[in-house]
Amino acid sequence: MASMMFTDCSSSTTARLLPFRHNPLLCRNNGVVSLRRLINLSSPRSLRLHSSSSLSPSPTASLATETPAKVIDGKSVAKQIRDEINAEVARMKDAIGIVPGLAVILVGDRKDSATYVRNKKKACDSVGINSFEVRLPEDSTEQEVLKFISGFNDDSSVHGILVQLPLPPHMNEQNILNAVSIEKDVDGFHPLNIGRLAMRGRDPLFVPCTPKGCIELLHRYGVPIKGKRAVVIGRSNIVGMPAALLLQREDATISIVHSRTKNPEEITRQADIIISAVGQPNMVRGSWIKPGAVIIDVGINPVEDEKSPRGYRLVGDVCYEEASQIASAITPVTGGVGPMTIAMLLSNTLVSAKRVHNFQ
Amino acid sequence: MASMMFTDCSSSTTARLLPFRHNPLLCRNNGVVSLRRLINLSSPRSLRLHSSSSLSPSPTASLATETPAKVIDGKSVAKQIRDEINAEVARMKDAIGIVPGLAVILVGDRKDSATYVRNKKKACDSVGINSFEVRLPEDSTEQEVLKFISGFNDDSSVHGILVQLPLPPHMNEQNILNAVSIEKDVDGFHPLNIGRLAMRGRDPLFVPCTPKGCIELLHRYGVPIKGKRAVVIGRSNIVGMPAALLLQREDATISIVHSRTKNPEEITRQADIIISAVGQPNMVRGSWIKPGAVIIDVGINPVEDEKSPRGYRLVGDVCYEEASQIASAITPVTGGVGPMTIAMLLSNTLVSAKRVHNFQ
Repeated sequence: MASMMFTDCSSSTTARLLPFRHNPLLCRNNGVVSLRRLINLSSPRSLRLHSSSSLSPSPTASLATETPAKVIDGKSVAKQIRDEINAEVARMKDAIGIVPGLAVILVGDRKDSATYVRNKKKACDSVGINSFEVRLPEDSTEQEVLKFISGFNDDSSVHGILVQLPLPPHMNEQNILNAVSIEKDVDGFHPLNIGRLAMRGRDPLFVPCTPKGCIELLHRYGVPIKGKRAVVIGRSNIVGMPAALLLQREDATISIVHSRTKNPEEITRQADIIISAVGQPNMVRGSWIKPGAVIIDVGINPVEDEKSPRGYRLVGDVCYEEASQIASAITPVTGGVGPMTIAMLLSNTLVSAKRVHNFQ
Repeated sequence: MASMMFTDCSSSTTARLLPFRHNPLLCRNNGVVSLRRLINLSSPRSLRLHSSSSLSPSPTASLATETPAKVIDGKSVAKQIRDEINAEVARMKDAIGIVPGLAVILVGDRKDSATYVRNKKKACDSVGINSFEVRLPEDSTEQEVLKFISGFNDDSSVHGILVQLPLPPHMNEQNILNAVSIEKDVDGFHPLNIGRLAMRGRDPLFVPCTPKGCIELLHRYGVPIKGKRAVVIGRSNIVGMPAALLLQREDATISIVHSRTKNPEEITRQADIIISAVGQPNMVRGSWIKPGAVIIDVGINPVEDEKSPRGYRLVGDVCYEEASQIASAITPVTGGVGPMTIAMLLSNTLVSAKRVHNFQ
């Protein structure tokens, strides 16, 4: 998801030449927005776009649009959800004396994994969920990890178990994930959960956190799903595939675009709702988007940025500058889907504790 | 799947007026083939179609096409597969003395169910698979059914267990199906199997028989799947949904059309491969089909036919007369997907016995 590719859909050179609000529409020629495509867009908002391909940016390019897309503020929604969870945790504790608990197992010394685990602990603290943490050295055996999982499976104060991925290469990820009790699989990645998600008339115990967060954003922003065309870009087990299953459960008509799809742009342009989760920076250009579509961008990709002290900045799968002029609503990167994932993990832990204790 | 709807996409009145090979193109006005749509089709086979809506059929209608679609002969492929299974069963018996066994449980007196069970027994006999049958009266308890399932779960001579559906209304179908050991779930309907089918890098123990049969037909007829657009019409747990998952596993770009889809015709017309499983007679008209598409028609629907001694005949979801002039290949109804389902059941039973005995 965080492949280190360096492309950029904005052009600071061009930006100085154009009378834009703040973002240029033109992009470097990696998936060029062609003039023909742009003028073919018949926008319900009278969007009129004129552009040319832009390795050699043209001063004749111009943009006229009525309103830019509404920003889907994941950070603010996640905060709201955490407040709701906080209230529920307090209500449960008052009523039956039970506090939900989440256990996280971290193996090895990866800095990014350590940061994720720390953030999860903080998030638990912020809503009153107990957190349990096990840190094991890189050279631990599979058996040692399994022993801790087994302990948490049997521990009634633990309602969710999360093994931070990736695991060291000498471990069998499938064996370890399968050892987590399905009743505590708050990640929702167990095949039994995915099967139930796919089947009509069945319900999963847990819905995977990131796709659940995507749908929750659509709900909270009142985006209708039933009967809409939805295109999911990417078919990973953790985002794309379950996101498509969730959209179908809500009666969207889904298409799944992936690396073998021959005409991703054409298919994506039919979508009322786009969820992109491929880890390709700025892959989805303005020309891929139907005017008025709603875009949920799951990608978080580093791209080179000399101006940043870190030398890079984070962008989504979708070229925000272009998309925000065509879509009716879009998640930013960062502050879009990202904060929702942890909020949904807390939600799943609460759901689990309520289910075990039959608390409504 | 066998809803009793009476529509007809052929018109014997019209047929007499037109210079067709043997089938009329015009249809009663249930999903009208519009002139505009037909002439908009740009066929790689120089297909030129002229039609008008046809409750009052027009003598000006005409058809010119180079070659009709290839008929995908499921009956013959199923026979070939049964021969292959027969040879494998014999080889296994010779090598390790094991004969695969399939147990079928039938509850109640439904004639159609009794016929299905009889056909399964005959099919087992024809390939040398042992069959075990339990017939229970309509007023049996759930507990009695569960007792037999438990017995077959423990019986090492049984490698597949099948509970004939539908069960009497006083029984909980989910409880009963869940009781079948996943290692013997030759129907492949267990959520764990479906989950594995959906997930990349996982493999189901069994693939549901009818969708497996659909894909097998595509394989045996050399139809390329990778990178193709595939539209599945219908999202049932037993056909549509797993068929879509299977196509995606083979790198098709899938779209799933269902009852809430607003423009099924437009989406279906984008497909290189169509699998239809909705139980709506002749719903998919010629105008829904891209010239050269391959069509797998799972529907088996009775339609009124005064000329038939039974008063009805069986047709598919797809209007065969029209589709066969536009598609490059199509399954007939009957003799298409139908015979493949039982062949795949036998195949799954053999797969199960081989797995248990580690026989390659």
